Amino acid sequence: MTGRADAEALDAADPIAAVRARFALPRGVVYLGGNSLGALGTRTGAKVAETVEREWGDGLVSSWNDAGWWDRPLALGDRIGRLVGASAGQIAVCDSTSLNIYKAVGAALQLAPDRRVVVAERDCFPTDRYVLEGLGSTLGDLELRLAGPEPGELAAAIDDSVAAVLVNHVDYRSARRLDVRALTVRAHGHGAVAIVDLAHSAGAIEVALDDWGVDFAVGCTYKYLNGGPGSPAFIYVARRHHDHVSQPLSGWHGHARPFAFTTAYEPAPGVRRFVCGTPPIVAYAALDAALDVWDGVDVLAAFEKGQALVDLLVSLVDERCPELEVASPRDRALRGSHVALRHVHAHSIVRELATRHVVGDVREPDVVRLGLAPLYLRFTDVLVAVDALRDVLDHEPWRNSTSDPRPTVT
Amino acid sequence: MTGRADAEALDAADPIAAVRARFALPRGVVYLGGNSLGALGTRTGAKVAETVEREWGDGLVSSWNDAGWWDRPLALGDRIGRLVGASAGQIAVCDSTSLNIYKAVGAALQLAPDRRVVVAERDCFPTDRYVLEGLGSTLGDLELRLAGPEPGELAAAIDDSVAAVLVNHVDYRSARRLDVRALTVRAHGHGAVAIVDLAHSAGAIEVALDDWGVDFAVGCTYKYLNGGPGSPAFIYVARRHHDHVSQPLSGWHGHARPFAFTTAYEPAPGVRRFVCGTPPIVAYAALDAALDVWDGVDVLAAFEKGQALVDLLVSLVDERCPELEVASPRDRALRGSHVALRHVHAHSIVRELATRHVVGDVREPDVVRLGLAPLYLRFTDVLVAVDALRDVLDHEPWRNSTSDPRPTVT
Repeated sequence: MTGRADAEALDAADPIAAVRARFALPRGVVYLGGNSLGALGTRTGAKVAETVEREWGDGLVSSWNDAGWWDRPLALGDRIGRLVGASAGQIAVCDSTSLNIYKAVGAALQLAPDRRVVVAERDCFPTDRYVLEGLGSTLGDLELRLAGPEPGELAAAIDDSVAAVLVNHVDYRSARRLDVRALTVRAHGHGAVAIVDLAHSAGAIEVALDDWGVDFAVGCTYKYLNGGPGSPAFIYVARRHHDHVSQPLSGWHGHARPFAFTTAYEPAPGVRRFVCGTPPIVAYAALDAALDVWDGVDVLAAFEKGQALVDLLVSLVDERCPELEVASPRDRALRGSHVALRHVHAHSIVRELATRHVVGDVREPDVVRLGLAPLYLRFTDVLVAVDALRDVLDHEPWRNSTSDPRPTVT
Repeated sequence: MTGRADAEALDAADPIAAVRARFALPRGVVYLGGNSLGALGTRTGAKVAETVEREWGDGLVSSWNDAGWWDRPLALGDRIGRLVGASAGQIAVCDSTSLNIYKAVGAALQLAPDRRVVVAERDCFPTDRYVLEGLGSTLGDLELRLAGPEPGELAAAIDDSVAAVLVNHVDYRSARRLDVRALTVRAHGHGAVAIVDLAHSAGAIEVALDDWGVDFAVGCTYKYLNGGPGSPAFIYVARRHHDHVSQPLSGWHGHARPFAFTTAYEPAPGVRRFVCGTPPIVAYAALDAALDVWDGVDVLAAFEKGQALVDLLVSLVDERCPELEVASPRDRALRGSHVALRHVHAHSIVRELATRHVVGDVREPDVVRLGLAPLYLRFTDVLVAVDALRDVLDHEPWRNSTSDPRPTVT
């Protein structure tokens, strides 16, 4: 059996253990919801206050130039680039993940004007489909081809009629990780572009956008990047497309000369053209502070720790909570940094865990989802969480429960 | 001649003079850039900090429900509704103005599937055209019919082929105000929908969306609503359309049951379906605090004061700065709350004004633009601004200047 001594030894050997002190976690809480909303950094509030009081309050409109607001979408993008394997100038931070999917797929369709088929996963995060549905209603002739969840089935769906393949690197529910490099090779072999959604992988596991050769990527900054609730998303556009790519949500902050107020849209060079309206400067400050947390952190060591946390959780659940089915892959190479545990009373289990100060969430219909954010979790936290799980299961509180709580937001 | 005594008398009689104390304006600055970026409220920083430290830091993911984050887009919308004549449940705060234009025009085209013509102003704010261009490239068959700036020419462009008419209530450069009610009647008479952009009017002059009968409106919260740099925009959808309207940027936060994770998009009831991705909670906090400033303020008295400030500025410029051409309408009913002053050396004048602690901006090629935000400006501030203008003109510094500064953001 794995015990406290084992967990303490892992914490003692953790090369990034000190990073936890950069977070303002509530005392006594084991927070396994970081795959849904990341934790607050200790310096985030001060940076936000600086932006609000000094840059906005004192600098007022001149801060657009004097404080570098204008450059922030790409400056933040470059900071994220280090975490997802993208060299400078290919990522813009702007809008939401949903909107950036719209832009990326729209751009892909404009790159291949004679193709109208988009391949996506049958079990993709639902907003992907909602976005594709909306884009399809606008285009009129978009064909959505759903495949998977088996990677082989996804690959088989890609043929010479396909304009774009949109996949989630890590599945929001099961944590299943796709081989994006292989799918990209397959897509390119058929003249299609590859788009990957990094919502559940950026900041949690290794991502190598340039190396994989994907064409577009989108991602979320409020999960493992700890940018705060509803913090702006990002979009990556491979440099080889920069000269000729266009996207449907053209707005003045993506214009080459926004203050010339020209009547025709002239896209800015590079990924800047994927910015649309005026970007959220106060939200950028929170994200900037959140990215400071990574300063001096060995990124690969962090990802390695995340996988070790997952391994520990899985082995403890196997040993001590056999009522729960581990519904995530056991192979590190095939999974992200959260764990799906299946149980018919998932809602009640998560509610009862919360009363024991262990925070996770539920995905319909029966998945207890626990996120293992490497920057601020300890191996002993995992032990505490499984102790709580065992305690909940022993008391089977759902036998007397008549209602389930409203699920929280991913 | 109008003098200090007159301005002081106007300040003494100002029924909302006390509201100025709710703003943290830099000492000694006359800020006439509030039509570009509104000023910071004294309590905004604290509300943002509360959201960051308490709601996010302590509450973590449970704040989506416990702190009411989920309801914020519409709760904030209702607060704005009071300022723009919209009864509850018709405004959502989300995304940028540019994106909300895309949604509104996209929705209008879906309401009239057999029509492909959109009428817009020849001199509209440029992002309107950039957005229409992007939407057109997606739709494939959108016809953009430009007209104006004369209202008669705009009205004449509306015929039975038109799906939607998109107008700016107040022109960003000249401050020309359109009769939106009349244009709406004209549009409806031809089976078209009316969309109005309130960027330069919401919070500055009277807006009566329900009363005018417009179908959609969009607006900006970082100008006269003081929501902060890049604060989220809003969209109004008239209640009569709620049951059947759809819009192209469908995302999971506009879904009827976002946590059911259904594969098909089911739009939420009402204007909620115009929300797309996860909304910016920290930015919402700043906007919420900015709207608190309006508590107990007689809105019509504020708008009346704005017009009186404009009157004073125009009369002082006429008297004392004849080199400047007043390029805004002189009739209150035909203008917004800023003033365009034309001069070939507009850039240099604005730069020199700034060295005298008077902040305005430039619009190409030759417009000095001065915003008169009623909540925090005094009549004596206008006098100080015109003193500075006269001083700048007397010293004609541009004779020795070889370059112009980069313009600031609207």
